[in-house]
Amino acid sequence: MGGDLLTDLTELGEFGLIARVSRGLARRQVAPAAGAIRTAIGDDAALLAPPPGYEVVATADALVETVHFRRDWSSAADIGWKALAANVSDLGAMGAEPLAALVTVALPPHTELKWLDAFYVGLGECAAAYGCPVVGGDTVRAPFHVALSVTALGTVPEGQAVHRRGARVGDCVCVTGVLGDSGGGLALLEKGVVRRPPGHHRAVLGWHRRPQPPVAAGAALARAGVVTAMMDLSDGLASDVQHLCRESRVGIRVQAERLPISDAARRTAGELGVEPTHWALHGGEDYQMLFTVPAARMSEIPALLGPLGVVATRIGTVTARGIEIADVGGAPRPLHPLGFAHFRENAPGSR
Amino acid sequence: MGGDLLTDLTELGEFGLIARVSRGLARRQVAPAAGAIRTAIGDDAALLAPPPGYEVVATADALVETVHFRRDWSSAADIGWKALAANVSDLGAMGAEPLAALVTVALPPHTELKWLDAFYVGLGECAAAYGCPVVGGDTVRAPFHVALSVTALGTVPEGQAVHRRGARVGDCVCVTGVLGDSGGGLALLEKGVVRRPPGHHRAVLGWHRRPQPPVAAGAALARAGVVTAMMDLSDGLASDVQHLCRESRVGIRVQAERLPISDAARRTAGELGVEPTHWALHGGEDYQMLFTVPAARMSEIPALLGPLGVVATRIGTVTARGIEIADVGGAPRPLHPLGFAHFRENAPGSR
Repeated sequence: MGGDLLTDLTELGEFGLIARVSRGLARRQVAPAAGAIRTAIGDDAALLAPPPGYEVVATADALVETVHFRRDWSSAADIGWKALAANVSDLGAMGAEPLAALVTVALPPHTELKWLDAFYVGLGECAAAYGCPVVGGDTVRAPFHVALSVTALGTVPEGQAVHRRGARVGDCVCVTGVLGDSGGGLALLEKGVVRRPPGHHRAVLGWHRRPQPPVAAGAALARAGVVTAMMDLSDGLASDVQHLCRESRVGIRVQAERLPISDAARRTAGELGVEPTHWALHGGEDYQMLFTVPAARMSEIPALLGPLGVVATRIGTVTARGIEIADVGGAPRPLHPLGFAHFRENAPGSR
Repeated sequence: MGGDLLTDLTELGEFGLIARVSRGLARRQVAPAAGAIRTAIGDDAALLAPPPGYEVVATADALVETVHFRRDWSSAADIGWKALAANVSDLGAMGAEPLAALVTVALPPHTELKWLDAFYVGLGECAAAYGCPVVGGDTVRAPFHVALSVTALGTVPEGQAVHRRGARVGDCVCVTGVLGDSGGGLALLEKGVVRRPPGHHRAVLGWHRRPQPPVAAGAALARAGVVTAMMDLSDGLASDVQHLCRESRVGIRVQAERLPISDAARRTAGELGVEPTHWALHGGEDYQMLFTVPAARMSEIPALLGPLGVVATRIGTVTARGIEIADVGGAPRPLHPLGFAHFRENAPGSR
């Protein structure tokens, strides 16, 4: 398969691979922010120059084949995109702007070069889209499964980073964008995608495969000093909100009818006989921002996020204790996480 | 096995694991450099504050079970130590001081908790020894084999980082410490270590399992402005020197009799019927610094490194072209890499 004379990594060798990767990334990435990347691939380490008066934000995620992705469900380019997108999302959640990324890839020896090339195409596209050039990493052999690890570095003006702690009783709880598209996409993949999927299927599959976290929105909210706490939604709202409440020592009440769910997710859910709020609460991989804002400052949000093309929705209120969800006119009930637990066997889904 | 009620990760769950890891690391690591680590584990990302006037150095390595380590050859604590040591070595090679590390760990579901705890003990010991606290990362499930990825961040005064480019014809080529101990240790492991190994076996095994890269020596050499190029030795001198020559567009001639080889490595090599220079040239994982110095400044080196307990040895000279090795009185011959190639099958050794 593929048009390459070198059909797999066994023939290429490690240093050939590093050279190939460097060339591929150099072609595809945008030029790094002027001066911020002093030197990248080719030395023992990359040399970065954060602007004066900025702090550095650092986050890392690992992604393992069969656990986090399946090569028959996502293209190599989509996997490359998503690996970096998940990490820049964490930067945005701290209020930071992307600076650079490091990517380590462990590959089975018979990985096809065209798979690897496509992986770096997708990675480079995400790096370009978010201004987060890949400046280093490692490529090694793995016995059976692809394993990826991405570290993303960002910068935030001193003292302006936003944490999970800080939410106060009475604050409004908001999310960016819509929730549940990724869960809907995964459900379609688990069921088996039809050959020429309709538009609403393509929409939810698209977010599942190439999420576009609103990183600039996170940075704008932080810069305006308007949010009291923020995090990104990666495991599912019901799970993620637990962390924010624990760190802030507060509770949250979510109004179920306020959860922003796309028409595409609603239609897909209807076809699969699933309640769409299930995906919004438990689906995971939404890569939207969850944040809290004092009620008196809610009116500032649209003017901050509108110019970025981002819509925020108030989904609930910070309370003194308890994590609850309420339907219209109904009594609130506890909101328990039901998401993916990495180390539990028989976990739902195949991520 | 083990005394834990929770005997493997399946029972612990991901969030239990993160809490356990955070507690374990917090106990073992030294306090982060005052003020440099603003917040660590517990938010979406770590927040770091490099000192004003410093640049940030970033490097990442992946380590995969059966490829880079074997759980029957190295203890979990040794694997944790070495994973971080290999990365701080790259920081030192740039002339940087360690700032912080991020570690992602992919674990088979039935990994014993006592293995994981011991891994973090060793990781934490290395973090403490080098002042490089682990401030973030990820723990995920892997299907069969442990896969680790470590990103190390360091700081270097603006403009003082040392690169692989910069070596000039006539410069002296030097290395810190001794070469070949790690290769000797690996050879013993491949042969099968005797039950109560003699001291010289323990010495070479010790460096193989817990290398102690002279990071402070790299920083001191950079600070003094005395080196023209520097890198760390990880794949073996014969392989690594190729990169320095390519980046600097020079050649190097190594004098074989000048290669610093420990008595322990010599004795072990004699017992195994191996030429000890083979390990010094091709063994890999020495984690020493390779650097070039103008001849006129060689006299400054002992006073710089002596107080750090580090000895440097001149092993050769930068030439206009060609990478060669010469025996006493013999004609120089080409020095080809023979080291481990990750993606080649039938590679020597089992790393």
